[in-house]
Amino acid sequence: MFKKDVYIERRNRLREKMSGGLVLLPGNVDAPMNYPDNTYHFRQDSTFLYFFGINKPGLFGVIDVDEGTDMLFGNDVDIDDIIWMGPQPTLREQAAQVGVKCTDSFNEVYAYVNKALWQGRRVHFVPPYRANNRLLLKELLGIHTAKLPDYVSLELIKHVVDMRSVKDQYEIAEIEKACATGYEMHVTAMKMAKEGESEQKIAGIIEGIALGGGGGVSFPVILSQHGETLHNHDHSLKLKKGMLMLTDAGAETGMGYASDFTRTVPVGGKFTQKQKDIYEIVLAANNESTAMVKPGIRYLDVHLNAARVITSGLKDLGLIKGDVDEAVRHGAHALFMPHGLGHMMGLDVHDMEDYGQVYVGYDDETRPMERLGAAGLRLGRRLQEGFVLTNEPGIYFIPALIEKWKKDYINTQYINFDKVMEYADFGGIRLEDDLLVTAEGARILGKRLPITPDEVEETMRG
Amino acid sequence: MFKKDVYIERRNRLREKMSGGLVLLPGNVDAPMNYPDNTYHFRQDSTFLYFFGINKPGLFGVIDVDEGTDMLFGNDVDIDDIIWMGPQPTLREQAAQVGVKCTDSFNEVYAYVNKALWQGRRVHFVPPYRANNRLLLKELLGIHTAKLPDYVSLELIKHVVDMRSVKDQYEIAEIEKACATGYEMHVTAMKMAKEGESEQKIAGIIEGIALGGGGGVSFPVILSQHGETLHNHDHSLKLKKGMLMLTDAGAETGMGYASDFTRTVPVGGKFTQKQKDIYEIVLAANNESTAMVKPGIRYLDVHLNAARVITSGLKDLGLIKGDVDEAVRHGAHALFMPHGLGHMMGLDVHDMEDYGQVYVGYDDETRPMERLGAAGLRLGRRLQEGFVLTNEPGIYFIPALIEKWKKDYINTQYINFDKVMEYADFGGIRLEDDLLVTAEGARILGKRLPITPDEVEETMRG
Ligand SMILES: [Mn+2]
Ligand SMILES: [Mn+2]
Repeated sequence: MFKKDVYIERRNRLREKMSGGLVLLPGNVDAPMNYPDNTYHFRQDSTFLYFFGINKPGLFGVIDVDEGTDMLFGNDVDIDDIIWMGPQPTLREQAAQVGVKCTDSFNEVYAYVNKALWQGRRVHFVPPYRANNRLLLKELLGIHTAKLPDYVSLELIKHVVDMRSVKDQYEIAEIEKACATGYEMHVTAMKMAKEGESEQKIAGIIEGIALGGGGGVSFPVILSQHGETLHNHDHSLKLKKGMLMLTDAGAETGMGYASDFTRTVPVGGKFTQKQKDIYEIVLAANNESTAMVKPGIRYLDVHLNAARVITSGLKDLGLIKGDVDEAVRHGAHALFMPHGLGHMMGLDVHDMEDYGQVYVGYDDETRPMERLGAAGLRLGRRLQEGFVLTNEPGIYFIPALIEKWKKDYINTQYINFDKVMEYADFGGIRLEDDLLVTAEGARILGKRLPITPDEVEETMRG
Repeated sequence: MFKKDVYIERRNRLREKMSGGLVLLPGNVDAPMNYPDNTYHFRQDSTFLYFFGINKPGLFGVIDVDEGTDMLFGNDVDIDDIIWMGPQPTLREQAAQVGVKCTDSFNEVYAYVNKALWQGRRVHFVPPYRANNRLLLKELLGIHTAKLPDYVSLELIKHVVDMRSVKDQYEIAEIEKACATGYEMHVTAMKMAKEGESEQKIAGIIEGIALGGGGGVSFPVILSQHGETLHNHDHSLKLKKGMLMLTDAGAETGMGYASDFTRTVPVGGKFTQKQKDIYEIVLAANNESTAMVKPGIRYLDVHLNAARVITSGLKDLGLIKGDVDEAVRHGAHALFMPHGLGHMMGLDVHDMEDYGQVYVGYDDETRPMERLGAAGLRLGRRLQEGFVLTNEPGIYFIPALIEKWKKDYINTQYINFDKVMEYADFGGIRLEDDLLVTAEGARILGKRLPITPDEVEETMRG
């Protein structure tokens, strides 16, 4: 938890931005796995964490814009809870640590919100993503769960996005902690990537390192020799010589801040020339993107430049033909990189994705593009100092997608399908770093993971 | 997944037991952590797994008792899903693997159930423990979420408990796999339990081993020098010499079967005499309990015997006074062991706890006792061959509980509070094995973890 002035200042800043009303911030509860008392690791709601900082289940925060007050609703523990969970600070004590003076038991939130509605006051909330909070908001507001999206406060989303997009020094320090754990995870995975080892075991061990760091993984580990499957959570294979192992994984700190790195390494520790050819293109796209990032540039343009680097590299290898700029305009690169260059990162690994991508990654100036290869871009808007984002170009050979493009004659003037088929079992390569936008440019967060083929091979040698 | 005949036979057996109607078995969906697409490790619903065996989200099973048919509702993937998640078998292919011939898209379940209700057919379901399935059942059945518990089918619960309580050979083999992973977790924790090591790190590493085994932990790891806090998920301390580290942890297989072990070891590898005195009492209670377990015995009686062993041992040490049987009758041992001796284990670590403890651990003959020290007993009923259960006696010194008993004059005739205060910072010891009830007695599942002080000290020496 940061010191309490941070939270007081954040709530006051939000109040100044808002036109009026009540801001409802339901915290998360423990999520059951297979029966009510057997729960997943607790994950607090990020918006609640940002404004109230308490990493405990069963709380409800209210920021009253009109009255200038903050409220926390929650229940204190009884003697049975102490036997099972140990002594706990009271709600009042916890609230005091984040500068909140008014507390009440959880059930009082119903009367409190009801009174506000009765008074005709505006009530603001962001989209609830957990079923239990959808039910809670339905009970509080009398809005059918399916209709809740229609009542979400765009005013609240806009102001919170403005605030959370720019990270302060405490947040950057937390993200760097998450990066340090992520570094250890990836180096461990590299060293374990020997022939015959099981993907599942490596994925488990590196998740264990994340948990040991205090927070757990920032998203389910992707670790696979089928890197062409972008979110591959199947880890059932043993490592085979000649294959590439793609690991996309990051950690969360105890306060919820994320890291997110991807590296792709040759099983056994030595790249083939064919692998190195593709790898160097992805690496060039990564390096050029970092070099371009600075305040004022649109990330959509950085993305399109990475697409050009990839298209040009693949043209040199004979997989793409024709004019590079034209090919990118037609989205030919999207056969090989069907995702965007990156996303905002902070308290969520895809920061604020619960509010809706269009409110976070785009703005009035830069709108999402439907164009092939840019539709999947989570972040397109102009960057500002203090933004934290990922830079994760990739090249993949996805059999189902190649087949579809061939069948539907998509971009046949730019794709050399015969040559592409020589890579049918290649897999995929992605290289991802986390960047902080500085006054002058960009800084890679954390110690940079081994990334050149030489660095990777040296790390894998031990 | 077991072979399809197992699932066909289970569904047919349930049909034979049921008086009629439709059995609704909603599977689980992915549970969001901090936004809709960032989800926890998928955990299938255990009842669904037992009857339909498919470990994938977004399915709904129906067992039609009257018509003798089975249905699976779910959606096939499209090209976008393939790009992100890789090629997937169709619902029809998955259904065929578990002997189900009728499949339809998920949304058809609404019309299907609606028709059955229209026809006046009885619809059976077990208590939904996830908010999204409460919402789903509300939509399907038109019952307010808060009223769903009133409509749960006790007939279904009773028959499923009868079936799932007795484990077949395939299930026992799975549980032994979970035990093998649990063994590795605990031995790793023992070896790591050196002065200065962080609890969080050990807890993380052993969870990583569970994940590497294919399923993850069967419940959140309990690992603490405050073993007196029974479900201690706070791992924020560094290990200190002279303390005991209690680890209660188990693994799940990829098919959902659990293990659940507890060991308590001295930080640094050497028990003090004071620790050994208490440890040997808990060990005796554990060993005597295993020796008593056999078909036909009530687990309540095994529990009460363990209470006598503990009371008698603590009397020898001067912490308890007076007649042992009388003291147990008055629940004096409950100051030191405020929980029950064990619980059923299978597809859930507390098997079928979602149905309600009274339906699983008790029966018409053996009813739950309100008596001090037995109220927390999850399993009291007469045992049968094929039951799998835990044996987990413990002795704890819980400052808040000691204070409460002193203040309220509870069992003052049996408790020597002055002597007890000498153990105020002792912590707690629990020793837990998993037992299979055999024709003759009981078998400890998996290779037994080091348990005598000598075995533990030797393991910790490396
Ligand atoms: Mn990423
Ligand atoms: Mn247990």
